[in-house]
Amino acid sequence: MSSQEAIFNSFLTKETFEGFEDNERYTKEWLPKVEKYRQALADSIPDSCKAPLPKPIDELINEQFNAMDYMYSAKLLTDDEFKITDTPAYKLVEQMSKGELTAVEVYRAFAHRAIIAHQFTNCAMEFFFHEGLQQAEERDAYFRETGKIVGPLHGLPFSLKEHMDYKGKITHAGYVSMIDNIPEEHGVTVDILQKLGAVYYVRTNEPQTLMHLDSNNNYTGLTKCPFNLLLSAGGSSSGEGAISAFGGAALGIGSDIGGSIRSPAAFSGTLGLRTSTRRVSDIGSVSAFGGFETVPCVMGPFARCVEDIDYWMKSYLNEGKPWERDGWVLPMPWRQVAKPAPKDLTIAVTRDDGLVRVSPPIRRAINEVVEKLKAAGVKIVEFQPPNTKLAYETLNKAYNCDGNLISKEFLSASGEPLVKLTKWNLNFGDGAKQYTIGENRQLNIIRDKLRTEYTRYLVDNKIDFILSPTYNNVAPHSEEIYNWSYTGLYNILDFPTLVFQSGVFQDPNVDRWTEEDLKYEYRSDLEKLENENYKPDEFIGAPVGLQLTGRRYFDEEIVAAGKTIVDDILKVDLFKH
Amino acid sequence: MSSQEAIFNSFLTKETFEGFEDNERYTKEWLPKVEKYRQALADSIPDSCKAPLPKPIDELINEQFNAMDYMYSAKLLTDDEFKITDTPAYKLVEQMSKGELTAVEVYRAFAHRAIIAHQFTNCAMEFFFHEGLQQAEERDAYFRETGKIVGPLHGLPFSLKEHMDYKGKITHAGYVSMIDNIPEEHGVTVDILQKLGAVYYVRTNEPQTLMHLDSNNNYTGLTKCPFNLLLSAGGSSSGEGAISAFGGAALGIGSDIGGSIRSPAAFSGTLGLRTSTRRVSDIGSVSAFGGFETVPCVMGPFARCVEDIDYWMKSYLNEGKPWERDGWVLPMPWRQVAKPAPKDLTIAVTRDDGLVRVSPPIRRAINEVVEKLKAAGVKIVEFQPPNTKLAYETLNKAYNCDGNLISKEFLSASGEPLVKLTKWNLNFGDGAKQYTIGENRQLNIIRDKLRTEYTRYLVDNKIDFILSPTYNNVAPHSEEIYNWSYTGLYNILDFPTLVFQSGVFQDPNVDRWTEEDLKYEYRSDLEKLENENYKPDEFIGAPVGLQLTGRRYFDEEIVAAGKTIVDDILKVDLFKH
Repeated sequence: MSSQEAIFNSFLTKETFEGFEDNERYTKEWLPKVEKYRQALADSIPDSCKAPLPKPIDELINEQFNAMDYMYSAKLLTDDEFKITDTPAYKLVEQMSKGELTAVEVYRAFAHRAIIAHQFTNCAMEFFFHEGLQQAEERDAYFRETGKIVGPLHGLPFSLKEHMDYKGKITHAGYVSMIDNIPEEHGVTVDILQKLGAVYYVRTNEPQTLMHLDSNNNYTGLTKCPFNLLLSAGGSSSGEGAISAFGGAALGIGSDIGGSIRSPAAFSGTLGLRTSTRRVSDIGSVSAFGGFETVPCVMGPFARCVEDIDYWMKSYLNEGKPWERDGWVLPMPWRQVAKPAPKDLTIAVTRDDGLVRVSPPIRRAINEVVEKLKAAGVKIVEFQPPNTKLAYETLNKAYNCDGNLISKEFLSASGEPLVKLTKWNLNFGDGAKQYTIGENRQLNIIRDKLRTEYTRYLVDNKIDFILSPTYNNVAPHSEEIYNWSYTGLYNILDFPTLVFQSGVFQDPNVDRWTEEDLKYEYRSDLEKLENENYKPDEFIGAPVGLQLTGRRYFDEEIVAAGKTIVDDILKVDLFKH
Repeated sequence: MSSQEAIFNSFLTKETFEGFEDNERYTKEWLPKVEKYRQALADSIPDSCKAPLPKPIDELINEQFNAMDYMYSAKLLTDDEFKITDTPAYKLVEQMSKGELTAVEVYRAFAHRAIIAHQFTNCAMEFFFHEGLQQAEERDAYFRETGKIVGPLHGLPFSLKEHMDYKGKITHAGYVSMIDNIPEEHGVTVDILQKLGAVYYVRTNEPQTLMHLDSNNNYTGLTKCPFNLLLSAGGSSSGEGAISAFGGAALGIGSDIGGSIRSPAAFSGTLGLRTSTRRVSDIGSVSAFGGFETVPCVMGPFARCVEDIDYWMKSYLNEGKPWERDGWVLPMPWRQVAKPAPKDLTIAVTRDDGLVRVSPPIRRAINEVVEKLKAAGVKIVEFQPPNTKLAYETLNKAYNCDGNLISKEFLSASGEPLVKLTKWNLNFGDGAKQYTIGENRQLNIIRDKLRTEYTRYLVDNKIDFILSPTYNNVAPHSEEIYNWSYTGLYNILDFPTLVFQSGVFQDPNVDRWTEEDLKYEYRSDLEKLENENYKPDEFIGAPVGLQLTGRRYFDEEIVAAGKTIVDDILKVDLFKH
């Protein structure tokens, strides 16, 4: 028995799974609906827009195919399409506002690229290209009539994580039992973004229960990393990460309760911001966590450059004013924060969180980034984050402290098969044990003490940000991601965190465990499981995304510093054309 | 059986109170400590500073004595003391900053007035005059040495609700079992205010469990309304309301989870602000609600003019930066908001919340205030608040959804007698029933829908504020306050609310039920109980305080509008000298 199996089985024994996986009921009552859903997705893609795959997809997966490189080298788009889709969103709006581009041109280019992204990565759950075109045409008509753009997101093709309510369309959150759920109106944020000009045409993949840092579900299955199709795209905003990295949307939106924006951004090779809570409305997003306050889920942007993250947040908050539609959201406009000079930055760097050792490519990326930051004049402080074990245990207990009541209902209602990582997440913390309200409050008290401890550390030591791995590895093999400690820490702290690309990609010739590494004594079964999963030859070309974290509600400062770090110091440009 | 007894008994049957009220244990183990505590309070007051009471206190209570009038007419302070203690706090600091007053002069005047306040109203739980004097001397020494004031609260005598941790002093929150709790450091806010210059010398009364809108406890008993000693001072920041109204402190701080700042401000005749959550740190306040997030307790200021409320908040937030010491507090500085012109204000007025009809003096005060607002050019909209029954039921369920677990532990640990309103509050909602976490989340979901409903109402109708009664009556007789619906609505909504004085006082010749009133059909037993308790001749001279409420985190706008309303339109000045 591998350590993976051992640890997995020990978790599983906590839970009897009564009522789950009723194959007869599922096959008879639900599978036909699921098949219809899949067929609708297949039918929605015009053959004329599909790219010729060099080999059948399964073969490409097995050979760790780099679909990003291929898209450029095989010229799967026209020059104009490449030019449009490799332009930052804020510049596209500028060009549309001057009449240099039409919304339809922009839309067609991104829609084409989205189809190719989906062919390789399986990032979409639903396309609706005719509606997208119609929205783009409406933007153009408005511009022709008024000479003005609709709003700051005018004509920007925008991808949506599936679990956000979409008027008139199935919204299932990865649960088969939710397939009959057809909202009568958009969720608040979906509505606001559209009113600001966004164009919708794709809803993206997410895992069953939304509680994997991966993508598997009984609807459309796994999403893959664009840079290495063998690997996971991360999750739970799996499709968002992949479509963003691939350039199949100008901007996107995901959600994050334990790393679900950051893991896909890091693994697939793009940028994502886990905002502080209560900045982006989540009214109208389906999950098992309604009313859960201990570790709230947050919504946040995906984009391919920091400037676009800034633009997304500024447009949404300052012109969308979500606090006028949602009593939960803070009336906190997006502050304009100047890009700091490197010499004015003090950054604490976490190389190991005390729980799970990072793999060689992560270690190398942190080293290289830190050296570049130092060379640019940034002050670096080594930082061993305190109480990470307590934080991680508390987080895991919090997730399931209702005994998974709602997840269980959602899953058992259809009897759908439980995919591998669902079994894993249902056993987080104390699994099926229902906590008392008093026990839940204890978790809140621990959480608040941790927040205060970390806040005071940063304030008292005059540290602006924390730089850390997003995960102990690059994108893992699909359904092989068990440890959430690096991302989850900032969920329990509610510290806003930007994932950006380091510019480092896994290199099997370099990123090998050393002799020293192999003598390492594991601190836990979880660490052993995670570290043993890293085999240098199986992660070729995987990108390394890192986390930049700041204090609660200092989202603006993080984004401003992100520009300094990504654009000025690391000079990582994801617009390849 | 009166309707009061009936309704009370029906609540009581929900709960068996096992383990409560162990008289033998209490008398033997705990009462001696309580007696020592009481003696320390009595011993702390120098005879030389005491005012001569015109009659024994029990007689004064029975004859509805107006201690405020008496203090002035009998000249219980010197002219200089009156002058100092009837000056707004922000002006005192200005005078101290110019060397026109010393901190010791200011301190001595307020300390003297605090003693008189306590003699009449029983507002204090603890005095420590020597320490207060020492702090004042330190402020003066600092000023002599540097020519500067310590901070914006330099030398301001500041009263503290007892349940906030005070270094080295018993902090019990009204529970006898906490009498051995001696914190090693100040609570975060107590610490910040002191560092900004505040001088501490008094900690003020609060009820057992903190969950009465009244004051009774087994330590020092009831606090009384300064304007009519027969009546309640409100609660749970009972002593804060009384000492502030009496002028025994320049500024004060209380806490509010259901009306606990607003009821004492209204009943005793002063001003208080229920801030939005997460603006004032509550690290280091003792209560049974640690980790409770459904309806969080907030801390907030007491003062005798709106300008001082503004000054308190601005000083605390902008110079104290509580978010650097407490990860729960929002980094949201106090915005400077200009005082609005009356014609720019739209105010929705609630005359009845659909649950409990208001008594004649409240009705008259609302009418008079509304007429004055209209005459000044304010646009008035009548407002019947929606879903108040659902809101009130949800609030009451939320308070006790842990089955009162912590309160029960705190109470049964000493076996102390349960005072009357403790029995009432322990039976709120479903009393001793422990909710599941899923049920608690349902309450959160209802709460968030209510917040959104009210937010959208205000936004969509362009309404700036809501004006409403603080309670369905003026200050009730002690231990006769059952209905929290008028204040509690804004706790579940988390809408910031300023209580200000209308300038109206109960007049038994005017404020009588009409013939029409007497034909009224009660909507509930609670309403009958509350309305029957209003007998015009028993509430003579009680002040009417009203609520001005705004959207979440629009605290600054409320305070700015408060200046327009209180100072410019109503011209209510609480500095009598």
